[in-house]
Amino acid sequence: MKLTEANTDRLLALKDEVTASYEELKARNLGLNLTRGKPSSEQLDIGESLLSLPGEDDHTLADGTDVRNYGGGDGIREIRELWAEVLGIPADLVVAGDASSLNIMFDLISWSHTFGNNDSERPWAAEETVKWICPVPGYDRHFSITETFGYEMVTIPMNEDGPDVDAIRELVKDPQVKGMWVVPVFSNPTGATVSREVAEALASMETAAPDFRIIWDNAYAVHTLTDEFPEILDIVGIAAEAGNPNRFWAMSSTSKITLAGAGVAFFNSSKENLDWYRKYATIRGIGPNKVNQLAHVRYFGNAEGVRSVMRKHSGILGPKFRAVTEILEKRLGGLGIAGWTHPAGGYFISVDLLDGTAKRTVELAKEAGIALTGAGSAFPLKNDPNNRNLRLAPSLPPQEEVEVAMDGVATCMLFAAIEAAEAAGAAE
Amino acid sequence: MKLTEANTDRLLALKDEVTASYEELKARNLGLNLTRGKPSSEQLDIGESLLSLPGEDDHTLADGTDVRNYGGGDGIREIRELWAEVLGIPADLVVAGDASSLNIMFDLISWSHTFGNNDSERPWAAEETVKWICPVPGYDRHFSITETFGYEMVTIPMNEDGPDVDAIRELVKDPQVKGMWVVPVFSNPTGATVSREVAEALASMETAAPDFRIIWDNAYAVHTLTDEFPEILDIVGIAAEAGNPNRFWAMSSTSKITLAGAGVAFFNSSKENLDWYRKYATIRGIGPNKVNQLAHVRYFGNAEGVRSVMRKHSGILGPKFRAVTEILEKRLGGLGIAGWTHPAGGYFISVDLLDGTAKRTVELAKEAGIALTGAGSAFPLKNDPNNRNLRLAPSLPPQEEVEVAMDGVATCMLFAAIEAAEAAGAAE
Repeated sequence: MKLTEANTDRLLALKDEVTASYEELKARNLGLNLTRGKPSSEQLDIGESLLSLPGEDDHTLADGTDVRNYGGGDGIREIRELWAEVLGIPADLVVAGDASSLNIMFDLISWSHTFGNNDSERPWAAEETVKWICPVPGYDRHFSITETFGYEMVTIPMNEDGPDVDAIRELVKDPQVKGMWVVPVFSNPTGATVSREVAEALASMETAAPDFRIIWDNAYAVHTLTDEFPEILDIVGIAAEAGNPNRFWAMSSTSKITLAGAGVAFFNSSKENLDWYRKYATIRGIGPNKVNQLAHVRYFGNAEGVRSVMRKHSGILGPKFRAVTEILEKRLGGLGIAGWTHPAGGYFISVDLLDGTAKRTVELAKEAGIALTGAGSAFPLKNDPNNRNLRLAPSLPPQEEVEVAMDGVATCMLFAAIEAAEAAGAAE
Repeated sequence: MKLTEANTDRLLALKDEVTASYEELKARNLGLNLTRGKPSSEQLDIGESLLSLPGEDDHTLADGTDVRNYGGGDGIREIRELWAEVLGIPADLVVAGDASSLNIMFDLISWSHTFGNNDSERPWAAEETVKWICPVPGYDRHFSITETFGYEMVTIPMNEDGPDVDAIRELVKDPQVKGMWVVPVFSNPTGATVSREVAEALASMETAAPDFRIIWDNAYAVHTLTDEFPEILDIVGIAAEAGNPNRFWAMSSTSKITLAGAGVAFFNSSKENLDWYRKYATIRGIGPNKVNQLAHVRYFGNAEGVRSVMRKHSGILGPKFRAVTEILEKRLGGLGIAGWTHPAGGYFISVDLLDGTAKRTVELAKEAGIALTGAGSAFPLKNDPNNRNLRLAPSLPPQEEVEVAMDGVATCMLFAAIEAAEAAGAAE
């Protein structure tokens, strides 16, 4: 979005009103926060019964395993089967871990770096450079991992139907390109979902690197904001059919379903990939917390139990997300100074402002007591080349605070746009 | 222990009796297992109430933190303080993680390997060779980690008062020597405890490598088999006083106190070391399971609660360990074919047999339906150069099974010794 697209006259006519609104906003001394993709207390209450599960005398599995004792690196059969049903995948191809799928992603890259993965000719550390494809805007914590390992992050656009496949096909002709991040459903932060067509293209394309991997982070697989659940693609199965069984490392977790940071994470991949993972995971430790896994089995009951929980989340989150987009429409509609996503799921709304105004907007909001995620945070190295993208996270504050904060943020967006229009006029 | 030390005449006189005992043993078709350092069901029952803790409506900490949500990479203050009191260390210098201290040890080595630690001139991966000091007999899972990273493991004796300091002082003159494993209290498998004198020597010695680290795995800090608790040395404090504040990475966990594999692990070190660890840990994930940490706070109550729990374990484990040593004494005493430890804590008894007879003893036991840990498992690469050491783990089976199994094992030890004596006689 560029300044030339803005309705400058209408915008400048608002100057006095917006300036007054902004002064008024600052005078309120707010302390609001739209930075974190964290569930609210009300959402966490949905999972409250987990705090006393599995419950005393409930520690023996169908196969006789005592979940209190050591052992079982793959996680307990019961949770793997339940989750496999949720995702529509074979239970044998999913491993259940501790709470964090990010932990597993980090380890997969770390171990590929040090030891090479099961298709590597050499450890990634022994490559002259490792390049990594990053659809943008994307998830900051993904980018932090590949940044930490010193990989060169190559950005491509994240479109409505997923990452730009034509751009990817070109990039993977380079054998130094070893992998790609993607959040396939209700993507962070745009809410876009990868179409079956794009998924199949990613699964079937030729890559110069035999050990190329796509980290398919299905963090929001069932995180609808409406009444409908998205189709979940069996990406590992699709890749196997396309003749590239080892292409995907697929992640998911219950973090934003039950308790954030105290849930269960899952890793779904080919048997070969899982066997390679197990080789190091069994050296790293004796296995995940099986007690917590059993607690989750008791809590959900079955796959439908997961969806039932997610409907409750949708009932809480949906109105917050709708408030954000309604306020943006009401305050900024028709001015040509911002475009935003209307996600049907996930945890974020992505806003593109006039080029060059994102950082200023965050600054203005901060001065008015509203914390926004740093501009550029959805880009590798936090560098948005157009300084225009903002990620809004309305999940954590109560409904009323979301509304107050967003109205304030809209004022800041307007204020920054007017400043930019004036500066552009002065420069003419 | 060598065959020349055996009372060969007395031993050979037992041949018919032992052969008959062994045949009788095989005929019983036992299915007993002394391989695993796992707690028994009876022990796990001590922690049963954890399965319903912290309990509904108990999720807010004194500082307002909601343990159900994301955040808090160091773990919750309450468990860090409780554990710091148990260990007699400052709470600020201890981080509480998920269940496994082994996970933390692996990561510390992995990140030193890839990135270098806070005192490294270069990543360990960039060194021509990395050498690692391994007191033997020692813990197989420690050795597996350094083996996985391709480090050259240099063995030194584990004495009654800890690892052989004179040998270590010589080795650390080599800048390629980057670290050392040690279990300082009720060591695995000998039960030896590092004396204050040895600890101070390790803390104060000069090392050629500035980034040399001792992994001080205090896995059995409070795991007494008697009425007495050992002194717990504040090794990080001792090292700071000696002018080497970053020397120790100290580990401990509740794995064999509450629930194995579902407890809380702790990492105690200097502020600089912890800050370096945090730098990567916060990229790897958002933090440990705080719900489980709060459950442990509620379960223990305070540091004395930990000791109270350990007395219950001692009440269960003590008789099993005493049965093992009593049976060994009764069956093998005076024959000069075996020496064994009399641990006052921990999970293992270490037995030295006649040179060359350990594997054969394990084989004989296996044929008789008694699983023993593979001979040599307490040595790097599972290579006991004398083929004489066995690690016995009596914790898991019920008391009666321990007694039956140990009587059988004693028979196998005798049988193997008689075979060896005969072979030696025939060779003369």
